[in-house]
Amino acid sequence: MFDKKILQQEIFQTVQKVKEIVPLVGSITNTVTINFVANAQLAAGGSAAMVYMPDEGESLADISQAFYINMGTQEPIYAEGVLRTMRRLHEKKIPWVLDPVGIGMGQLRKNLLLEAKHFPPAIIRGNASEIIALKNLWQLNENDAIQKNLGVRGVDSLDEVDDAIFAAMTLAKFIGGAVAVSGACDLVTDGNVCVRSKNPSGSKFFPKITGAGCSLGGVMAVYAAAGSPLVAAVTGMNAYNLAGELAEKQVNAPASFQIKFLDELFLATPEQISSVEIFCKEEF
Amino acid sequence: MFDKKILQQEIFQTVQKVKEIVPLVGSITNTVTINFVANAQLAAGGSAAMVYMPDEGESLADISQAFYINMGTQEPIYAEGVLRTMRRLHEKKIPWVLDPVGIGMGQLRKNLLLEAKHFPPAIIRGNASEIIALKNLWQLNENDAIQKNLGVRGVDSLDEVDDAIFAAMTLAKFIGGAVAVSGACDLVTDGNVCVRSKNPSGSKFFPKITGAGCSLGGVMAVYAAAGSPLVAAVTGMNAYNLAGELAEKQVNAPASFQIKFLDELFLATPEQISSVEIFCKEEF
Amino acid sequence: MFDKKILQQEIFQTVQKVKEIVPLVGSITNTVTINFVANAQLAAGGSAAMVYMPDEGESLADISQAFYINMGTQEPIYAEGVLRTMRRLHEKKIPWVLDPVGIGMGQLRKNLLLEAKHFPPAIIRGNASEIIALKNLWQLNENDAIQKNLGVRGVDSLDEVDDAIFAAMTLAKFIGGAVAVSGACDLVTDGNVCVRSKNPSGSKFFPKITGAGCSLGGVMAVYAAAGSPLVAAVTGMNAYNLAGELAEKQVNAPASFQIKFLDELFLATPEQISSVEIFCKEEF
Repeated sequence: MFDKKILQQEIFQTVQKVKEIVPLVGSITNTVTINFVANAQLAAGGSAAMVYMPDEGESLADISQAFYINMGTQEPIYAEGVLRTMRRLHEKKIPWVLDPVGIGMGQLRKNLLLEAKHFPPAIIRGNASEIIALKNLWQLNENDAIQKNLGVRGVDSLDEVDDAIFAAMTLAKFIGGAVAVSGACDLVTDGNVCVRSKNPSGSKFFPKITGAGCSLGGVMAVYAAAGSPLVAAVTGMNAYNLAGELAEKQVNAPASFQIKFLDELFLATPEQISSVEIFCKEEF
Repeated sequence: MFDKKILQQEIFQTVQKVKEIVPLVGSITNTVTINFVANAQLAAGGSAAMVYMPDEGESLADISQAFYINMGTQEPIYAEGVLRTMRRLHEKKIPWVLDPVGIGMGQLRKNLLLEAKHFPPAIIRGNASEIIALKNLWQLNENDAIQKNLGVRGVDSLDEVDDAIFAAMTLAKFIGGAVAVSGACDLVTDGNVCVRSKNPSGSKFFPKITGAGCSLGGVMAVYAAAGSPLVAAVTGMNAYNLAGELAEKQVNAPASFQIKFLDELFLATPEQISSVEIFCKEEF
Repeated sequence: MFDKKILQQEIFQTVQKVKEIVPLVGSITNTVTINFVANAQLAAGGSAAMVYMPDEGESLADISQAFYINMGTQEPIYAEGVLRTMRRLHEKKIPWVLDPVGIGMGQLRKNLLLEAKHFPPAIIRGNASEIIALKNLWQLNENDAIQKNLGVRGVDSLDEVDDAIFAAMTLAKFIGGAVAVSGACDLVTDGNVCVRSKNPSGSKFFPKITGAGCSLGGVMAVYAAAGSPLVAAVTGMNAYNLAGELAEKQVNAPASFQIKFLDELFLATPEQISSVEIFCKEEF
């Protein structure tokens, strides 16, 4: 039986451990939000390093406690750089987070996302349509048991995240890790348990700054250095929703929000992050 | 006869429409200010996406309501990426904004700027020397009528922007769109009408932050999804000068200025942006 | 005999001259912190421009008063771009700052850092381990006189920066310029004189934002356009420690710190920067 109290204890421990060990988390990530990703990783208690070159991706994988790969702003070197880094992460069993941003655009990204199936990440983070698209790209058949239990999607769906529950659980079961779907009411699942944030959670300003999702993926990687994929993903979700809520109260516009958000992410304690309201359901 | 009241109504409508339709505006832009461009586009009410790969440029062009191409920090992939994206934008008649930053430096940039002549943008934005250099690169003969009417540049020139009026009007006539010249007293022209901001306009801190010009180009692209090139360029100019003035009052240094500026850009209403003081002249 | 008063006068003059001449400082630098580098250079009073292409690196070198090359986020074009830029800077005797960040990771970075030995920078800036690694990569024999005078490192070492004193002085003598080691107690040396900041200096938030070191290197390049390598490096160190201290007093978290830090860097006067407490020792 799934126990929410235990999950919350594990969240507490994960945040605490990150602050103790200051894990090195390497990244290959897009140029738009690369600075935000690094600063969010530092704020959460990690150490950040970014590369593009294939041999650097491998070297960085070797010394990282976790890794983040974001598919935005593809460049030609990604063909070899991302591929070899994913392979190395898989060989060395280093947990990594995949953000399939931009899925459906361009042949290189498609090739790399197809390759990622062979070197499965510990966590996949995206919005609802990205998660659905990745499930389709990987041609995963939805688990019959999941479908039966979820039933037909009804009018009570909370938001567009609901549309991605099938896909998220299917992907999570396939990778043997966790999938996080960002939206008005966030979802994290390991294929068995579904954890939801309250609705709405976080801040209305998240969609008004670039990189809220990317940096969340980067922060989930930081937590993946200290906790299981499910725990790391929920910890990241909680930290973001907590810091977002606290920041929003202090500002009236997005640029100030981003600064306060990073401040609050830095200031958030294990106790606060583990106390963020979540709903858990184990019925699939 | 040109009517300033109508222009102001169109500015109002353009800002309002952008906030309603949240247009997707793709960009190929430099790595220095790419984050600022994206956040400014979001603040103005658009949706932002950045790419480098040629096939992604084409795909993004297909789904964008407008596009922004900035020639800063050229990378080898730009040779094909920018070229194919410009061609696609031209084929699909999607309005795009060209920022010829760095013109005169490097063979690749020169080649791409020469190619841009064949796929003319809806708006060109630059400082005075960039606009003059682009007119020269494109070997456009100044329109005799423009020259006659403008006469010899006298001692009453407002600032260096005045030096670029010939070039701006000539370029605007050639592309059949608008040219915006940034300076102490900004200029926007469609080759017939010249619209100027008051002098000085905006903020003394604009030159003290990197990307004020780039992000203005990106925001003009957002407005080009909802208004004509002339209206979009003036709307962008007004929004920047308004937000810059409001921000400057709250701060004493550039980093705080940039945050407050983005906040004010987000908070600016259609009414405020359309009410910014401008001077119009139709005499060429 | 070395005279601290003269050094302080030179610092004053360097800051003042930068604010007068607004030197153009070109950079090839990593994508993570490129925006921070540019904004810090503007805040210090310089003008910033970033490139990647080889011919642009050469052109930019030709028109720059100083240059900054940072080895982070290597891309394939760096092989030619950084190499040709270093060569041109050397030919034209333009002072440049090398930041060997990531030394030890990847073949391309190794090759470029080996090449840099033939086109020596005016200033090398790094943390202790980077400086030691560069001395080893360049296979410089430690100067016997330095070793004898320094003696065996004892228990009274201030921090890890002390471990890099040998390497820093050896490198500084080799390049005929200055080496700056960032840490809890910063060090700048020209191989003869050692200048230290007080311990601890600056702010506890520097390690909590990405790019404190990169942007310091970029700012040292700004000052190198107006002062000798030793003076430029100490001026940068002082400006950072001053602005860091002033910023820290106003905030409780790193994102707000970064904004206030840039503000204070912009506001810092020649008098303030030259009055920052430093310790000088000429005994090697």
